[in-house]
Amino acid sequence: MKRMSIDLLSQFGRRVRVGLVGGGKDSVIGRTHLVAMRADGLYDVVAGAMSVDPEVARASAQAELIDEDRIYTDFRVMAEREAAREDRIDAVVIATPPQLHFEVASAFMEKGIDLICEKPLTRDLGEAQRLNELVQRHDRIFLLTHCYTGYPMVREARALIASGALGKIQCIEGELCAGFVVDPQNPDRHWRFRESAMGKGVLLGEVGSHAHHIVSYITGLRVEEVSAEMTTFAEEREVYDNAYLTVRFEGGARGRLWGSYVAVGNDHGLSFRIFGEKGSLTWVQEEPEVLWFKAAGKPALRLARGYNCLSPAAAASTRFTAGHPEGYALAFANLYSDFAKALMAKRLDLPYQSYLDGIPGISDGVDTMALIDAAVRSNDKGGAWTALTRQEIGLPGRS
Amino acid sequence: MKRMSIDLLSQFGRRVRVGLVGGGKDSVIGRTHLVAMRADGLYDVVAGAMSVDPEVARASAQAELIDEDRIYTDFRVMAEREAAREDRIDAVVIATPPQLHFEVASAFMEKGIDLICEKPLTRDLGEAQRLNELVQRHDRIFLLTHCYTGYPMVREARALIASGALGKIQCIEGELCAGFVVDPQNPDRHWRFRESAMGKGVLLGEVGSHAHHIVSYITGLRVEEVSAEMTTFAEEREVYDNAYLTVRFEGGARGRLWGSYVAVGNDHGLSFRIFGEKGSLTWVQEEPEVLWFKAAGKPALRLARGYNCLSPAAAASTRFTAGHPEGYALAFANLYSDFAKALMAKRLDLPYQSYLDGIPGISDGVDTMALIDAAVRSNDKGGAWTALTRQEIGLPGRS
Amino acid sequence: MKRMSIDLLSQFGRRVRVGLVGGGKDSVIGRTHLVAMRADGLYDVVAGAMSVDPEVARASAQAELIDEDRIYTDFRVMAEREAAREDRIDAVVIATPPQLHFEVASAFMEKGIDLICEKPLTRDLGEAQRLNELVQRHDRIFLLTHCYTGYPMVREARALIASGALGKIQCIEGELCAGFVVDPQNPDRHWRFRESAMGKGVLLGEVGSHAHHIVSYITGLRVEEVSAEMTTFAEEREVYDNAYLTVRFEGGARGRLWGSYVAVGNDHGLSFRIFGEKGSLTWVQEEPEVLWFKAAGKPALRLARGYNCLSPAAAASTRFTAGHPEGYALAFANLYSDFAKALMAKRLDLPYQSYLDGIPGISDGVDTMALIDAAVRSNDKGGAWTALTRQEIGLPGRS
Amino acid sequence: MKRMSIDLLSQFGRRVRVGLVGGGKDSVIGRTHLVAMRADGLYDVVAGAMSVDPEVARASAQAELIDEDRIYTDFRVMAEREAAREDRIDAVVIATPPQLHFEVASAFMEKGIDLICEKPLTRDLGEAQRLNELVQRHDRIFLLTHCYTGYPMVREARALIASGALGKIQCIEGELCAGFVVDPQNPDRHWRFRESAMGKGVLLGEVGSHAHHIVSYITGLRVEEVSAEMTTFAEEREVYDNAYLTVRFEGGARGRLWGSYVAVGNDHGLSFRIFGEKGSLTWVQEEPEVLWFKAAGKPALRLARGYNCLSPAAAASTRFTAGHPEGYALAFANLYSDFAKALMAKRLDLPYQSYLDGIPGISDGVDTMALIDAAVRSNDKGGAWTALTRQEIGLPGRS
Repeated sequence: MKRMSIDLLSQFGRRVRVGLVGGGKDSVIGRTHLVAMRADGLYDVVAGAMSVDPEVARASAQAELIDEDRIYTDFRVMAEREAAREDRIDAVVIATPPQLHFEVASAFMEKGIDLICEKPLTRDLGEAQRLNELVQRHDRIFLLTHCYTGYPMVREARALIASGALGKIQCIEGELCAGFVVDPQNPDRHWRFRESAMGKGVLLGEVGSHAHHIVSYITGLRVEEVSAEMTTFAEEREVYDNAYLTVRFEGGARGRLWGSYVAVGNDHGLSFRIFGEKGSLTWVQEEPEVLWFKAAGKPALRLARGYNCLSPAAAASTRFTAGHPEGYALAFANLYSDFAKALMAKRLDLPYQSYLDGIPGISDGVDTMALIDAAVRSNDKGGAWTALTRQEIGLPGRS
Repeated sequence: MKRMSIDLLSQFGRRVRVGLVGGGKDSVIGRTHLVAMRADGLYDVVAGAMSVDPEVARASAQAELIDEDRIYTDFRVMAEREAAREDRIDAVVIATPPQLHFEVASAFMEKGIDLICEKPLTRDLGEAQRLNELVQRHDRIFLLTHCYTGYPMVREARALIASGALGKIQCIEGELCAGFVVDPQNPDRHWRFRESAMGKGVLLGEVGSHAHHIVSYITGLRVEEVSAEMTTFAEEREVYDNAYLTVRFEGGARGRLWGSYVAVGNDHGLSFRIFGEKGSLTWVQEEPEVLWFKAAGKPALRLARGYNCLSPAAAASTRFTAGHPEGYALAFANLYSDFAKALMAKRLDLPYQSYLDGIPGISDGVDTMALIDAAVRSNDKGGAWTALTRQEIGLPGRS
Repeated sequence: MKRMSIDLLSQFGRRVRVGLVGGGKDSVIGRTHLVAMRADGLYDVVAGAMSVDPEVARASAQAELIDEDRIYTDFRVMAEREAAREDRIDAVVIATPPQLHFEVASAFMEKGIDLICEKPLTRDLGEAQRLNELVQRHDRIFLLTHCYTGYPMVREARALIASGALGKIQCIEGELCAGFVVDPQNPDRHWRFRESAMGKGVLLGEVGSHAHHIVSYITGLRVEEVSAEMTTFAEEREVYDNAYLTVRFEGGARGRLWGSYVAVGNDHGLSFRIFGEKGSLTWVQEEPEVLWFKAAGKPALRLARGYNCLSPAAAASTRFTAGHPEGYALAFANLYSDFAKALMAKRLDLPYQSYLDGIPGISDGVDTMALIDAAVRSNDKGGAWTALTRQEIGLPGRS
Repeated sequence: MKRMSIDLLSQFGRRVRVGLVGGGKDSVIGRTHLVAMRADGLYDVVAGAMSVDPEVARASAQAELIDEDRIYTDFRVMAEREAAREDRIDAVVIATPPQLHFEVASAFMEKGIDLICEKPLTRDLGEAQRLNELVQRHDRIFLLTHCYTGYPMVREARALIASGALGKIQCIEGELCAGFVVDPQNPDRHWRFRESAMGKGVLLGEVGSHAHHIVSYITGLRVEEVSAEMTTFAEEREVYDNAYLTVRFEGGARGRLWGSYVAVGNDHGLSFRIFGEKGSLTWVQEEPEVLWFKAAGKPALRLARGYNCLSPAAAASTRFTAGHPEGYALAFANLYSDFAKALMAKRLDLPYQSYLDGIPGISDGVDTMALIDAAVRSNDKGGAWTALTRQEIGLPGRS
């Protein structure tokens, strides 16, 4: 069961002070971050520039009982003023649209504030690489909130593959196919439908990035080449709303990634299936407590959160006994919990890297941006196999 | 989507201050309460007598960053001292074994502190009735944490039945059949296995109470008579470890309740099936996001949390969009959220009863204690049909 | 994989000749018997008194290409004439309502014709016992078509329990709860709703018998005492439409059997759950290819038809590789196949008893009739525990 | 419910006489054909060249009680001799490896014998086109046994899409990913692993053909272009063992087809998901009784075989009431049943085309061979988009 990091918290003597940029009252993802960061009692929300709309910014901050003098409408002002306070924030949560991530992250990073950033990492690969360099230079802790990797059974999948239980990985299937229905009378203004956010391939940032990250996370394999077929089905849309990617992984595995807005009828749509020489794993985000392990010639095993037979990584991500579904918010909370421990440990001059091993960081974000970049180029060339651009110096391998 | 009670919190100006009795570091249920009460940011844990063991009490409280002067080892001292403070606790959470509930609840109630109490309500029916009278006399808000009724889809089931979608209810099946394996070398000291907690029928308090409460909650029907067959399968046990109850409900419905410790292999084991003249509902706690509605002669409908077609009660209990499983902690959090709103509203002299309508209270606890009392008597008489003892004056109907 | 009994068929030199009594064109169960007996190519349908209505009898027989001179409307005439032929039928299929089973079976048995009989065995326990005596005296092979025991995974459940995989059996749950909707304008004339068929408890013959037989079959345990609560919910009905039975098995296991017509929304409704000291089994007829085995403290195993790890009994009942669902008709066909092999072997003076070991016989029918008899008496006495009447001489144990 | 074609059978006066080529005792698919053709009592197996091995041929035929003088070892001799008999076979079942299909079919077709042929249609596209021309010229009835289209819920899917319930189709996902484990000590000699059967892309004939046919069947859409990525993972194999196809359909839909031998752990692996503007359908062969219909913004509907709300096509393919799983053999039997009716009707000079509308014919086979041909070419060109070769004159559209 989850150790609540009691000793670290006691040593640190207080909760992590956090400020929010974006994620105001009208934001779905903002609500989610708040629930996730509260769950384990490791954070205090003390500052926020939660909207560019001053009224929304104020109302959102008041709802969190943030003091008047720490409610901001401009993230640069917030970075400046917070840096000047004795009780300054330790970390900032960036929940704005992706085209602002680079600027916001840069502003706080320079003040020595650690970073929790929504996916996709940035507007494009170039920004991602520059942000990576800055993070390395400033030696900041960086959490990219690919929340689904906080699920214990996703971590179990990663541990099982690392243990060799599946043998050499051959086929890798990941998808996040959503069903966003177009209402022409009431067009969705979300950045996911705007070319301005990250070009015509923005759906790869919004949904495709989760599919890519989760399979990379659990297999530890990186995509080398991609062949893409991207389509816009809904005439009203200025961006692609379906992307089929066929991919070649390092070491020879083959796979497919599917990101879609037109999977009508789907509630969520994230899943993976990994096939190795000796067995396979299947996981569906909508039943996150269960991981199916099917070994060649054996009955399927229904592995579930809380079981004694699971890996330390899964056990450490678990709060309740089996059969009490922990759900999405607590998966998300696992990322926040690991980040808080790393932050406290680092500031206490204790070893902290191990807390970061299981959570997505800046290099994962760069990796996905490289895939998106290559996929858009492949699609422009009629699906030709296209290699991902890597900037190896800036990409420290995940330990 | 869930309204975060922003206006009430702003008006109240601070979070609800809460103290804990029991639920220390070695307690599974204590951890759960903490996660649940944190989720919506409506509570501050400021005091605690979390264990009778001073070391555990201290360590548990420190882990919550409770101030030294509010860490107690005796709940009576805690009630006394807290009552004397200006920043006294608003509510106490009682997470001790059931035989202490009456005493703890009484001590705090007399000081004007509202009550959040674990199930089963008390040691026996007599205590339950006396506690009920005290709660009425002191006019206290009382939450009995039958946490599973906090699930949106359980609330949807209740709303569907109230709407007449199932027609007249005929058959009611509820069960919580757990698989606690006996380890003779290492006997479980949990109160659930101790006759001292509430007699040989303690499993009806531990597991049976959830099965009874959930079907009562969703159907609004009370059990009138019970025929019980209780057994001890594991020789090492001093209490029954299996209880089959056949029950007759007011209005003519028939049903069965099953509470068990010997359902080996089960992870959790709570479910209900309700059959009416026009259709049926099925829900399994381990897949809590889904409620199956099967109308006569029609395909089954898979209703899920977050859908537009759901009742206001379900919608108000929902934080995230469909397909992002909220899980057990957020179901539990719904009880805490409703309780906090009722408490704030009452203290602000606003209408508050509506916040209590959807959460289990003292009368639900008395009702279940009456069932347990009758079931034990029936079993002693070879399964003879036995009427429940009601003390109608003390039992205000659920509005 | 299933051995098609090739050698026996070759030795016998022809298919088994079979005649039908009842089961005409307007009969659901008749169609099922025909598909089941055809599947393995071991039967020729050559005679029939398929309805008391001459037109239906003729049309039904012609549809099976039965010769004109072997189409009958009276089963006694059929027994007489068939017995006089050189190419006489080897076996008769009795698919009439239950109150005729005794008479029809007696008529053919006396002519040396073997018997395939629909459930429930007879109108009442007395008839069942007398029929049993006749079958023993005439030394006839008798198949009672409790078709669900032909499923490979039901046979696997039996083999697993016999192997001790579950340890001592403690709780036994069986149910067949159907949802037959009442249409007052168009009442169902099926015998299942007629008191004349077997009294007010006829639903125990129609649906309850399957629930009882299947759990007896797989556990090998017989019910000793029953406590019954039977109800008529639909006013239009002259019989009970819901029966809750709590039962005590020999050796100490406890269980519940549920037979219902009012489980509105159910498609079929047969399932069992068996809990032993070491593990449990769950099977649902509507997903018949899968048997869930859950051992204490271990992940659930999804056992499926066709797997290499299954018992000889399951393997011998299997035609196709895993993942090609065999379904209900081939389960039924397994009973027909075993019966045909027994019949051929017996007539070839070969050992034949082993073919009968896995299929329901006359003693199973007597056993269920004893349960029904005791359940009705218990219900009449307000649910008092009532012992089953056994006539041990007439009840040879299943080997 | 299924009408058993009683009148046609009575008019025809006898069952369809059928001969088998291939499919002997050592053949899995042979056993399946036998069960399928027996189920509805419309066929008599009277002749066979069931193996090239004389002993296997003889034993296989004897097991079916075929007369000595109609047991053959050479299909040409069989065609010759059968054609000369008065009681000649009406139809031949071709269950040999694909490279023999053309020759066998030609031999019998010329004698006026109708054809039931296993998939894939032929060794290559050229053969397929020539066979198509021969079938048209000889005016023969031709059933290609893509057995999965016999499932009632697959036919329901087709009817739903034809009715417009999904709106314009956008994404089409079909797969048959099997997990055939390589045993180097005991290599599988099945044609599915032999380059000689149909080249290195033989897996597209063995498994890919089912995925392609089923989505074509239900959507009525033909593939125009394909981009293929084919791989050999198991070094021991002389053929590809994984094929990822991205496809463009006529009218703008996009899709993916996956055929694999390396989906380790899968029992079977056939499924489809079809997404239209208004809703989606999901079906998995291993739970064939259920078709999920998810309309935009509505709860998922669980449609099941036997429901009153289904289309005439599904109803006509159904034998038993809902909840009695019909399974694979009866799906297969639906093809046999429709073929028999067409054959009888045609020979009775009655309209017969409607019986063929729902079953796969020669043009379906040509269509899949064109896909395979283009996929192999695309793969050879590094996944370039490759148009399918059509020979429109020879390809009468499915009416």
